[in-house]
Amino acid sequence: MTRTVYVNGEYLPETEATVSIFDRGFLMADGVYEVTSVLGGKLIDFEGHVVRLARSLKELDMQPACSRGELLEIHRELVKLNNIDEGLVYLQVTRGSDGDRDFVFPDPKTTKPTIVLFTQNKPNLADNPAAKKGAKIISIEDIRWGRRDIKTVQLLYPSMGKMMAKKAGCDDAWLIEDGHVTEGTSNNAYFVKDGTIVTRPLSTDILHGITRKAVLRMAAEAQLKIEERLFTIDEAKEADEAFTTSASAFVMPVVEIDGVALGDGTPGPIAKRLREIYLDESRKAAI
Amino acid sequence: MTRTVYVNGEYLPETEATVSIFDRGFLMADGVYEVTSVLGGKLIDFEGHVVRLARSLKELDMQPACSRGELLEIHRELVKLNNIDEGLVYLQVTRGSDGDRDFVFPDPKTTKPTIVLFTQNKPNLADNPAAKKGAKIISIEDIRWGRRDIKTVQLLYPSMGKMMAKKAGCDDAWLIEDGHVTEGTSNNAYFVKDGTIVTRPLSTDILHGITRKAVLRMAAEAQLKIEERLFTIDEAKEADEAFTTSASAFVMPVVEIDGVALGDGTPGPIAKRLREIYLDESRKAAI
Repeated sequence: MTRTVYVNGEYLPETEATVSIFDRGFLMADGVYEVTSVLGGKLIDFEGHVVRLARSLKELDMQPACSRGELLEIHRELVKLNNIDEGLVYLQVTRGSDGDRDFVFPDPKTTKPTIVLFTQNKPNLADNPAAKKGAKIISIEDIRWGRRDIKTVQLLYPSMGKMMAKKAGCDDAWLIEDGHVTEGTSNNAYFVKDGTIVTRPLSTDILHGITRKAVLRMAAEAQLKIEERLFTIDEAKEADEAFTTSASAFVMPVVEIDGVALGDGTPGPIAKRLREIYLDESRKAAI
Repeated sequence: MTRTVYVNGEYLPETEATVSIFDRGFLMADGVYEVTSVLGGKLIDFEGHVVRLARSLKELDMQPACSRGELLEIHRELVKLNNIDEGLVYLQVTRGSDGDRDFVFPDPKTTKPTIVLFTQNKPNLADNPAAKKGAKIISIEDIRWGRRDIKTVQLLYPSMGKMMAKKAGCDDAWLIEDGHVTEGTSNNAYFVKDGTIVTRPLSTDILHGITRKAVLRMAAEAQLKIEERLFTIDEAKEADEAFTTSASAFVMPVVEIDGVALGDGTPGPIAKRLREIYLDESRKAAI
C-alpha cells in the first residue's frame, strides 16, 4: 500500500512527496521534528509533542507552521488514511525555501515554513519483542552540537552512533561527555541501583523527553526514588538494571553496557513495571 | 531568468528541482557539500573541492555519487547553461532515500546517493565591495559538533551565528571553544602581528579549507612568516590586522573584532596583498 503523506497543506502519495532542493531543511539542517506514537489508532502524549515543537521553533526564531488544532487534524487524518493501529507519526517543520541558499535566515513574511508529516506502520510497537529481550548498548563519545534540548534534524551523529552499535553487535549507544553519560542516541538514559532510579537532569545537554517527563511522574507516583544527577558509564555498568525512554520505544530495558551484563542479563523489574504503567496510562490518555 | 540546476542525472528548471521528503539530507542532515567559485566562467580550485568531497564521503561511509570527470562536466555545463561569468557552483551529496526514515544507514547496494548542483550568479565576486571595506566580526561560543573537518550540511549553528552577527550590526562571527578561536562561521580565521600570520592548525576542530591551503602556500612563497597554533580572541583583538579565507569570499580582511578596531580600522596590507595574489594565481589556474 502506498502511504499518504502530508506536505504543505496537501495529502499526497508518498512517492510524489517532495520538497524543493532549496529547502533549508535539506541545505542547512534548519528544521525541527517530533515523533508521536499511535496505539489503538490514537495519539500518545500529543500535547507534549505540540508543546515541545513550539519550544523548538521558538528557540530557533522559527514561525509556527500550524495551529495545535490543525496539527491534530493532520495527525488524525494520516492515521485514518493509512489505517495505522500501532505506529508512528513523524512531523518535520523547516524554515522553508526562499528559492536560493544563504546562511542568513529568509524573511519570515515571504518565506513560509515547510511542514511534512508521514506515518510509519509498526504493528508490534507496544508488544515489541526487543523490549522483552532488552537492549545491549555501547558507550561512545558525545560529539553532537551543544543545544540538544532543541529537537533539530541534525541527526547525523546519532545515526553514526546507531551504526557503531550495530557493528559492535549491539542495539544502541549511550553518549559520554566530560566523563558523564548525556543520553542515548535517540532516547534518555537511566540506571537503577538499590531501588533508586538515576538519570541526568534537564539542561541544554539532553533532549527534554516527553516520555522522560511522563515516566518520571509515574515512577514518583509509584513511590520509586528518583535522583536527577550526572552519572558515569561505570556507575551504570554496576547498576542492578538500566533502561531508556523515548516516544517511539516507550520504556526499553537495557541488559548490557559495553559487554557487561546488568543483574542477571535480562530486563529488570523496575523497567518492566514502568513500561507496563506507561503503556497502560498512555493508552487511557490517548486521543 | 530561471536557473537550470542538476538533480540526480537531470538538468531541470530550478522551480521543478525537488528531492523526496525521505531523503536523508532532509530528514537527518546526512549529507555533505562543496562550493566552488567561478571567475571568468572558469572553476577555481576544482581539484581541491573534488578531493575534499571524496574525503567527506569516505569519513561518513558514503559512496561517491559521480566520478571526477562527471562532476567536472556537470559543473561546466551548469556554468554554461546559466551564463555564469562570476559566481558559485554549489554541490551537495546525501546518502539518498530508501523511501522511509531510520537512523540505520540504508543498504548502499539499493539506495543511491542524491546529488544536487546549482549555480549562484555573483557578478562582483572578485571585485567585492565588502572586501574593500573589510568585515566586522563578533565572537560567539562554538557549540557545533566535533567533526568540523567533514563538510556536512549541519549548518544550523553557523547560520545562527551569522544572524547573531547581523543583529549586532556586524558581518560575521568567529567561534570560540575552550578559550581559543576555532574558525569563522563559514571560513578559516587568521590574524597578523608583527608580520607573522597566525592561524589554528588543522584538526577535527576546523574545516580543512581549500582556500586556507592555497593562501598559506602563497604566503610562504611570498616569504611571509606563518604560525599554525591555537590563539585567543584577545590576541586577535590586539593584532595589526586580521582576515578570513573561504572558497566563496577568497581572502576577506577583518577590520573589527567585538567592537575593537584593528590597526587603523581599514583592511590591512597583508590581507589585501594575499587577496590579490590569490585571485591572480587562481584565475591563472582556473579550469
